[in-house]
Amino acid sequence: MDPIIIAVIAGVLGLALAGFMALYVLRQDQGSERIRELSAAVKEGALAFLGREYRILAIFVVAVAIILGVIPNLGLWVALSFIFGAICSGLAGFIGMNVAIRANGRTAAAAQKSLNHGLRVSFRGGTVMGMCVVGIGILGLSILYFVFHNNPNFLAIIPGFGFGASSVAIFARVGGGIFTKAADTGADIVGKVEKGIPEDDPRNAAVIADFVGDNVGDVAGMGADLFESYVDSIIATMTLGMIAAFSITLDKSLVPNEAAAWFLPMLVAAGGIIASIIGVFLVRVGDKPEMGALLNALRRGTLSASVLAAGFAFLAIKFLGADLNIFWAILAGLVAGVLIGESTNYFTSYAYSPTRRISEASQTGAGTTIVSGFANGLMSTLPPVILIVIAIIIAYRFADMYGVAIAGVGMLSTLGITDATDAYGPVADNAGGIVELSGLPPEIRERTDALDSLGNTTAATGKGFAIGSATLTALALMLSYTQVVGIKFGELSLLDVDVVAGLFLGAMLPAIFCAMTLNAVGRTSFSIINEVRRQFREIKGLMEGEARPEYGKCVDICTKAALKEMLIPSLITIGTPIVIGFVLGPLALGGFLLGAIASGFILAVTFANAGGSWDNAKKWIEKGYFGGKGSDAHKAGVVGDTVGDPMKDTSGPSLNIMIKLMSIVSLVLAPVLIGTSGLF
Amino acid sequence: MDPIIIAVIAGVLGLALAGFMALYVLRQDQGSERIRELSAAVKEGALAFLGREYRILAIFVVAVAIILGVIPNLGLWVALSFIFGAICSGLAGFIGMNVAIRANGRTAAAAQKSLNHGLRVSFRGGTVMGMCVVGIGILGLSILYFVFHNNPNFLAIIPGFGFGASSVAIFARVGGGIFTKAADTGADIVGKVEKGIPEDDPRNAAVIADFVGDNVGDVAGMGADLFESYVDSIIATMTLGMIAAFSITLDKSLVPNEAAAWFLPMLVAAGGIIASIIGVFLVRVGDKPEMGALLNALRRGTLSASVLAAGFAFLAIKFLGADLNIFWAILAGLVAGVLIGESTNYFTSYAYSPTRRISEASQTGAGTTIVSGFANGLMSTLPPVILIVIAIIIAYRFADMYGVAIAGVGMLSTLGITDATDAYGPVADNAGGIVELSGLPPEIRERTDALDSLGNTTAATGKGFAIGSATLTALALMLSYTQVVGIKFGELSLLDVDVVAGLFLGAMLPAIFCAMTLNAVGRTSFSIINEVRRQFREIKGLMEGEARPEYGKCVDICTKAALKEMLIPSLITIGTPIVIGFVLGPLALGGFLLGAIASGFILAVTFANAGGSWDNAKKWIEKGYFGGKGSDAHKAGVVGDTVGDPMKDTSGPSLNIMIKLMSIVSLVLAPVLIGTSGLF
Repeated sequence: MDPIIIAVIAGVLGLALAGFMALYVLRQDQGSERIRELSAAVKEGALAFLGREYRILAIFVVAVAIILGVIPNLGLWVALSFIFGAICSGLAGFIGMNVAIRANGRTAAAAQKSLNHGLRVSFRGGTVMGMCVVGIGILGLSILYFVFHNNPNFLAIIPGFGFGASSVAIFARVGGGIFTKAADTGADIVGKVEKGIPEDDPRNAAVIADFVGDNVGDVAGMGADLFESYVDSIIATMTLGMIAAFSITLDKSLVPNEAAAWFLPMLVAAGGIIASIIGVFLVRVGDKPEMGALLNALRRGTLSASVLAAGFAFLAIKFLGADLNIFWAILAGLVAGVLIGESTNYFTSYAYSPTRRISEASQTGAGTTIVSGFANGLMSTLPPVILIVIAIIIAYRFADMYGVAIAGVGMLSTLGITDATDAYGPVADNAGGIVELSGLPPEIRERTDALDSLGNTTAATGKGFAIGSATLTALALMLSYTQVVGIKFGELSLLDVDVVAGLFLGAMLPAIFCAMTLNAVGRTSFSIINEVRRQFREIKGLMEGEARPEYGKCVDICTKAALKEMLIPSLITIGTPIVIGFVLGPLALGGFLLGAIASGFILAVTFANAGGSWDNAKKWIEKGYFGGKGSDAHKAGVVGDTVGDPMKDTSGPSLNIMIKLMSIVSLVLAPVLIGTSGLF
Repeated sequence: MDPIIIAVIAGVLGLALAGFMALYVLRQDQGSERIRELSAAVKEGALAFLGREYRILAIFVVAVAIILGVIPNLGLWVALSFIFGAICSGLAGFIGMNVAIRANGRTAAAAQKSLNHGLRVSFRGGTVMGMCVVGIGILGLSILYFVFHNNPNFLAIIPGFGFGASSVAIFARVGGGIFTKAADTGADIVGKVEKGIPEDDPRNAAVIADFVGDNVGDVAGMGADLFESYVDSIIATMTLGMIAAFSITLDKSLVPNEAAAWFLPMLVAAGGIIASIIGVFLVRVGDKPEMGALLNALRRGTLSASVLAAGFAFLAIKFLGADLNIFWAILAGLVAGVLIGESTNYFTSYAYSPTRRISEASQTGAGTTIVSGFANGLMSTLPPVILIVIAIIIAYRFADMYGVAIAGVGMLSTLGITDATDAYGPVADNAGGIVELSGLPPEIRERTDALDSLGNTTAATGKGFAIGSATLTALALMLSYTQVVGIKFGELSLLDVDVVAGLFLGAMLPAIFCAMTLNAVGRTSFSIINEVRRQFREIKGLMEGEARPEYGKCVDICTKAALKEMLIPSLITIGTPIVIGFVLGPLALGGFLLGAIASGFILAVTFANAGGSWDNAKKWIEKGYFGGKGSDAHKAGVVGDTVGDPMKDTSGPSLNIMIKLMSIVSLVLAPVLIGTSGLF
């Protein structure tokens, strides 16, 4: 039996679980007339956005496929692999979001029964996303294997799939991120700051756009991001494994043959899917759960999945006769992933002192809120960087650069459950908003608030995990690039001026990218603010609650602006490595990638954690500390949250994709760059 | 005749000009009783701070000297060279600040006569600082030459001098930076935001501390920073030149002999001093000057100095028989320095759209002010990074790594005049404050405001120049380190896991450093805010202007806090390269330095330009745009300024020193690290 069958079985099981969970969600009570109406509005906006986004993407994908097809060293198969990767990623995002937009209203209705009902519906909704990502990912790669494993050009064809997935991811993350944060910021600034009305107030015209944004950004965007990491890390490992098997530069004893090169990352991933499925079933609590118990249930699920995944990885190595040292590399990746998530939680949860200090600083105004939150974000880079450094040193010492790549696969193997706990958050968040808008009694809102708060914790952990895994994946792709293009060890020297020049340019690009995405959110939210203000001014009786705002207008503004604004940053991300590679040469491109990975990693952690801690510092004040809601400290806290929103949900997460995308573009380009040396 | 005599003559001429300018300033009218009283209070506070700072520094210097003295591969001469470097840097800062604190009151008095009088006194005050830095720098290095040029251990001894200068610089910049911004932020938040009283209002208890801070931070701190760049770039060039002359790895034809290795950087620097002296005398305007004419006068001075310095450098190369290709490297450095300064001005002046867009964004509140300013800072990294990349590629292509080092010397050769135009700013700023506090008529304040505004432009240009030169200097030191420790070209490979691990850790450290310094300013300003609030609460009649606040209390709080807070970040900067070098090995340390330089460069530009543009966006609003003073947009602008203050004047500039200091620590350590390989 071909061992790839195990991967196929795992993928099918993952999708079966997704289907089961989806059916469960769809069978739930849709709630009152008002809930259905609101849920329908969100659904309509989200689908309209995704549809238009995918239409633009389709044009882009076809154009790039034609270019790939006509390049002599790449050709038709690479182009088809690229299209296939794009379709798989788009499909995972589409299915996941479709369930999420149906789960939000049902979670609101379930929360009317009990907290536990609410948790179950929302977590199962999130599970669909997680399982779709891993299931479609591994099945897509299995199909690639069946079709191409005898093609002599496979080293060029497989990365095409990852490039397709990465392209969809950048557009989805940037577009979705701009949508969600422009709507959120716009709603907050006019609603909370200017008019003094609460969050999710039905009088706020941007409130539905805000909910739509959660789905297109935090569900579909996050899913595309993690799909990219997942398949890219496997592809990088396959590439390095194949090079090792053909013994070009790597230690042949690590990966004994071509079969092991193909199968090892697939089997580690397959084991992770099985482990995740078991983990999902371990997430259960009693009928009257406390928040602590909920969090523990989620933790139990993810940690059990990690332990099981490690065990399965060990078996896979034994089964394929690969070097047992590889196991330590996988373990290093798995452990680093879990610990990076925990460190993110420490720096952003109001249960710990870093975030509480930001709340305290809010007493002296918005200026000190911003400075202390930004300092916290910068400081929070310490544990993730040290953890990644330890992981790559261990991985390298035990299994050379192949170890670094498979450490990434190890870290991502439990993605099925980690993405589930992550995608659950926006469903709960939406549900809370729907409860508020439909005027349900405050105790129901308290329940959805509890779910939302739990979701914030899992989102923080998930964000750290996403950044860490993106860094390892990008590093693995960069190493694959150097091997395919044939860069020798001593050539990629920091004493070579081209490498240093590339490194500086690479370190700069994430900053430029963040500037562009921050400005895009700023411009879009400016339009939203003016629109919400206009509606308050022109619609009679709106402030008094006697008239309804025109929600659709804000959804429309966000859609148009996000689709327009996502283009330039995405195209720059794809274009820059091509320009560097041809103008400054393949060595400069190697330095460029490493510079971008290091600087992107640090900026991504800073942005995510500064944003997360501002958000929770505001929530801590809202719980009654330092003056509570409505105090000057609270106003300062709201400013902090407004600043953090685009940092943590648009620019920061987009960096994850950026570093992977630039690395895989380079890998795809590698066959064309062989033997070139730049223009200068 | 020993060519070093030319350097000595240039140094003496520089100091003579400094003495002449100092005498001119001291002969000026000291102004009214009230002006003298205020000036005396500032002088007293600044001298008390510097005295206590130097006492702490003395303990540190003696302790480090003992350690250096007992390390076998270093020894007594390195220790003495270190002490000598520290004394030279301290002396330059002490003299420069002493004149600046006497020039402020005299500028206020001179401004009563005319704008031109005010400019002359303040610019001449600043010139003392600039000329002291270059004069003491080149004379100190000449003394080193006379004493040690026959010592076989000179490659270890010269960097000791730079290490001493760098150590003083980090304490001075961090300590002074914390002092100045804690006082400034504290004064602004209580005065402008809470009490609604204008800037520099005599009722504000922190106002004298704010003036003291300008002197200890922006004059003494900036002077120490540039002194460090100046001598370190020469030292790096000497080191690489000597290695080239002894033909270990570099092209021997570049630097034909040991004499050329010693003399070339010294003569380029000497030529720059002469050029700067000529430039200073070209800064003159008619009796009724407009602002544009003032700026043009300063520009004419610095640009003429640059052209002359290039000419002198050409002659020096000819005279010493070195390769003419070196000239192109020097020119690349000079031109890049000028252009980086101009790009900083573009991104931070309200004459251009980036800053005006921040003012516009302030209409929708503090949140959008912060996001757009931060985005502007990130975007502003584009030109400096590209300019540095072009400069190092040109320098390298023409003269190998020696070219990179001497490009730094070229960029810094006109430091005498660029530092003068920079140090003039805080003198004018102080003078404006004294005019306000002593109740002089508004037309006098208008004149000092004009001088201050010009100072802001030169400060922006100067900051860009400081960052660019720090980057080139640190890069040159890092290259020297690799050559002294004997790292071969192919060893420092980005495919080596130690190098990559070092690179990640290095890229992280500037972020951690910024977090620490931002928090230090936050904590200190928190104490100041509480003290100013307390005085408003407890001193009867203070708000009504019937009683005086206790200015000394705030000065005292700032002094104690700044001295305490400067220790940990400074010691971490010195300690980390040592730990990396011994634990992860010399290769990791090479990667570490380059990671820190790239990330530090980008963060420094971002922080400086975000801060500068927030400051000027607020000033643009104050000129009457988007609602003008007192409007909501103005309040948002003030928040932006408060956030930017510690970024642009504490954390950002400290990064310049940090990257140079870590590089020179590594260079000093290099003889000890030869042949070691880390613990793992």
